[in-house]
Amino acid sequence: MRRFVIGQAKNLIDQTRQARHKSLRLLSLLAASDSAPVLSSPRLFASSSDMSGSDSSSSSLPVTLDSLNPKVLKCEYAVRGEIVNIAQKLQEDLKINKDAYPFDEIIYCNIGNPQSLGQQPITFFREVLALCSHTALLDESATHGLFSSDSIDRAWKILDQIPGKATGAYSHSQGIKGLRDAIAAGIEARDGFPADPNDIFMTDGASPGVHMMMQLLISSEKDGILCPIPQYPLYSASIALHGGSLVPYYLDEASGWGLEISELKKQLQDARSKGITVRALVVINPGNPTGQVLAEENQREIVDFCKKEGLVLLADEVYQENVYVPDKKFHSFKKVARSMGYGEKDVCLVSFQSISKGYYGECGKRGGYMEITGFTSDVRAQIYKLASVNLCSNISGQILASLVMSPPKPGDDSYDSYIAEKEGILSSLAKRAKTLEEALNKLEGVTCNRAEGAMYLFPCINLPQKAIAAAEAAKTAPDAFYCKRLLNATGIVVVPGSGFRQVPGTWHFRCTILPQEDKIPAIVNRLTEFHKSFMDEFRN
Amino acid sequence: MRRFVIGQAKNLIDQTRQARHKSLRLLSLLAASDSAPVLSSPRLFASSSDMSGSDSSSSSLPVTLDSLNPKVLKCEYAVRGEIVNIAQKLQEDLKINKDAYPFDEIIYCNIGNPQSLGQQPITFFREVLALCSHTALLDESATHGLFSSDSIDRAWKILDQIPGKATGAYSHSQGIKGLRDAIAAGIEARDGFPADPNDIFMTDGASPGVHMMMQLLISSEKDGILCPIPQYPLYSASIALHGGSLVPYYLDEASGWGLEISELKKQLQDARSKGITVRALVVINPGNPTGQVLAEENQREIVDFCKKEGLVLLADEVYQENVYVPDKKFHSFKKVARSMGYGEKDVCLVSFQSISKGYYGECGKRGGYMEITGFTSDVRAQIYKLASVNLCSNISGQILASLVMSPPKPGDDSYDSYIAEKEGILSSLAKRAKTLEEALNKLEGVTCNRAEGAMYLFPCINLPQKAIAAAEAAKTAPDAFYCKRLLNATGIVVVPGSGFRQVPGTWHFRCTILPQEDKIPAIVNRLTEFHKSFMDEFRN
Repeated sequence: MRRFVIGQAKNLIDQTRQARHKSLRLLSLLAASDSAPVLSSPRLFASSSDMSGSDSSSSSLPVTLDSLNPKVLKCEYAVRGEIVNIAQKLQEDLKINKDAYPFDEIIYCNIGNPQSLGQQPITFFREVLALCSHTALLDESATHGLFSSDSIDRAWKILDQIPGKATGAYSHSQGIKGLRDAIAAGIEARDGFPADPNDIFMTDGASPGVHMMMQLLISSEKDGILCPIPQYPLYSASIALHGGSLVPYYLDEASGWGLEISELKKQLQDARSKGITVRALVVINPGNPTGQVLAEENQREIVDFCKKEGLVLLADEVYQENVYVPDKKFHSFKKVARSMGYGEKDVCLVSFQSISKGYYGECGKRGGYMEITGFTSDVRAQIYKLASVNLCSNISGQILASLVMSPPKPGDDSYDSYIAEKEGILSSLAKRAKTLEEALNKLEGVTCNRAEGAMYLFPCINLPQKAIAAAEAAKTAPDAFYCKRLLNATGIVVVPGSGFRQVPGTWHFRCTILPQEDKIPAIVNRLTEFHKSFMDEFRN
Repeated sequence: MRRFVIGQAKNLIDQTRQARHKSLRLLSLLAASDSAPVLSSPRLFASSSDMSGSDSSSSSLPVTLDSLNPKVLKCEYAVRGEIVNIAQKLQEDLKINKDAYPFDEIIYCNIGNPQSLGQQPITFFREVLALCSHTALLDESATHGLFSSDSIDRAWKILDQIPGKATGAYSHSQGIKGLRDAIAAGIEARDGFPADPNDIFMTDGASPGVHMMMQLLISSEKDGILCPIPQYPLYSASIALHGGSLVPYYLDEASGWGLEISELKKQLQDARSKGITVRALVVINPGNPTGQVLAEENQREIVDFCKKEGLVLLADEVYQENVYVPDKKFHSFKKVARSMGYGEKDVCLVSFQSISKGYYGECGKRGGYMEITGFTSDVRAQIYKLASVNLCSNISGQILASLVMSPPKPGDDSYDSYIAEKEGILSSLAKRAKTLEEALNKLEGVTCNRAEGAMYLFPCINLPQKAIAAAEAAKTAPDAFYCKRLLNATGIVVVPGSGFRQVPGTWHFRCTILPQEDKIPAIVNRLTEFHKSFMDEFRN
């Protein structure tokens, strides 16, 4: 028996080695596919044995699509969707067939991932992070020649707040208390109202915080969450995964993606008439994908609406540092609520913040927090329990989250260079937003609201009937049809509006403003040329 | 109206300031509470306004316990439970009332968090991490005096695998391809069988991977997951959160926590007779909390059982580097399955690995991966989608996960110091395990299997009837009663067996082997004295 097994094993090793060589060849083709994430087709990440022809119908394996959680099947996430998949294949082919395409690179404007497009991290933040990663550096005299004095001071301060200076230990489930103190102080400085470090739950980016709140609030499809349309697909995905109902409210494109209370009321009533208990209202400010910055008066109305209707206000405020126009200013919903005289007992409010956005753009570090106010102590205990089950968020992300909320101050060694880096990034983003918006508005049949904030433009394309018919013939949504054509003609990757939802019969795409400034003119040229030829082809 | 609002706001600022001063006083009392995480009582992390007397009954706030997802309410997580809460309060009081207690410090043996108890990180790993955190260091000549040459080489190699060297960018949803290559190569070296980087999904520690698989496999309470009893409460918590049924199988304490196939069969049949479709079998090897290391022959039986019964094998292999006895060796389930001649089409297998355990103990960095084999391409696409919704795991954790699977090799600059650090930690852990086990076995009515692996001992306490009656009178489980008494008498924090589940009528506790070696004699003395006096008090 043992000999038989050994023989079997040897055969298998030979077989798998052969298969592996095949797969390694394929993998080398795909090697650069890290440059932008993608919801690949199964083939793109098939394992060696899958390549030998296995699929769910021929397999005797126990797990099939039919046996999976239907909520998982229902969930969609467009920003890593089909278009990006095509882009990655093009990128691979571009390496081999340089002359086959009218462009020489793929430009990923599909996702808010600034450092992937060349944005440099803030030096001070990375200095502190390096010192906290390898604390032995703090004992070396040579370190003083390599690091700013305030980064060394800050690293010591952070380490003093961590029991045993152990950055490799699990922290308190909400995050290291001293770092939460720094965040609360940063919120106070921003808002002019008190913030309590015990209200802060640190998270691996904003997404896990959103999931946690959905998990808490949704019991069944009878629980609804009011979400803006267009929306960032994290919300639709998380609501689908937790089995709830997305209750849409439409932003008014004609008034710069305005959020009308009458629309909120209408949709709330409509949902209630269908037996849905609406638990929460999601507001994304500055908007994603829409880029608007809410006026304070509008925010007051929203707060009053939530108070009156008994809704939790889930405030996605991850773009709070990304405001590009002089006539708009970010106001946190907590500041607005407190300035209206509402305290803990009046409004349930969760504010999500992330280190992935702003001028820092530290997406890969996965840091963020939610500030939770207006929940009773027994409900908070349940939120705490959910946080505990995953032990804690990563400490590097926690450290960065504290740094973005308490950056260098005037007089600090790093202050001048920090301000120069920060303002350089933000002013460049503002310029890029303006240039791209103007270029889009010059295109036939395209209207584009300005990006007051966030990292995206979301133009409306008035597609000719012939283009819509061609899309239907190709069994694809008209905006996806346009985006695929754009990609194939220019190498520019954008996400069709249908991935974010939109007013039925309208068509959009989301394009980040993140390519470096020196690339913008070429992008504008390519886009303009493509659009002209597309319209020439399909003009009614 | 505006003036009224401003007046209200001013009043509120004054009120919240006062409340904040109160809460700050309380917070300063709790400042050291980060040293060990805790599922606090609501009071422990109440916000300022909660302290003014709000609770769910008196509040007009919309979110109450009744309105929450009942799956969240059902979920329990003992390792951050009540005992730890009491310990934290003691720790606070100890600062003020030094002489009120028969001990001068709290020793947290409740959680596998090595660096919180003084274990030092592996220098090479931290050097690489620092260089990747602040890449400008790589251009400085002074860096060569501060870092080993192979850490500099490795940092360059890692950066070369990241598009644009951007450690601050989101990666591929499964993790950076080059790092997955390193992990796959490490698995191949460990097992002697091929591993495919496309089978690797990098995660923020093992917990998110476990949640992802539960989310995928569980549709309702009709879906069951076979779990060992005793189990690590992540499994019961995750199954509860996803609304499935935990199907228990009991490990045989008398045979060193043996895993009997007859028991698996019996429990599977029993679950099926109740209409439950069992989807997967969880095996924790080395065991948590039980510390046993499975024999290869036993693993073969388990693989055959899963194949025959159509179960996904969820192999928790996070303690693969933690084996302390010469007669046992860790074998991955994938190696065992492949050595039996089983390939991709035969067995659905998920192996979980973490950077939090082993000799590295990098809990705070939140890194890990799951290796997924035997799933059809369409099911894998769903797993990929779930990974995509959270964008990616943190890059520092990804880097560390690649390093623990590809540490320095003979000839590398760091090799000797790396080996010295690694063997120092592992041999010390083995000594501590042995010393504690022997001490426990000397106690009246206590039997303790040896810790062959992992980081815990799980002794059985034969509690006297009088103690059980006293526990009943105190409305607490007998093992929790014992653990609370132990804590109050000695400052040693352990977790009652009831948090892990156990054979009804038996009582245990879990104690980590992680306190530093110089603390072990005092722990043994305190424990021995306490136990004697406990038994003297309650002996029948």
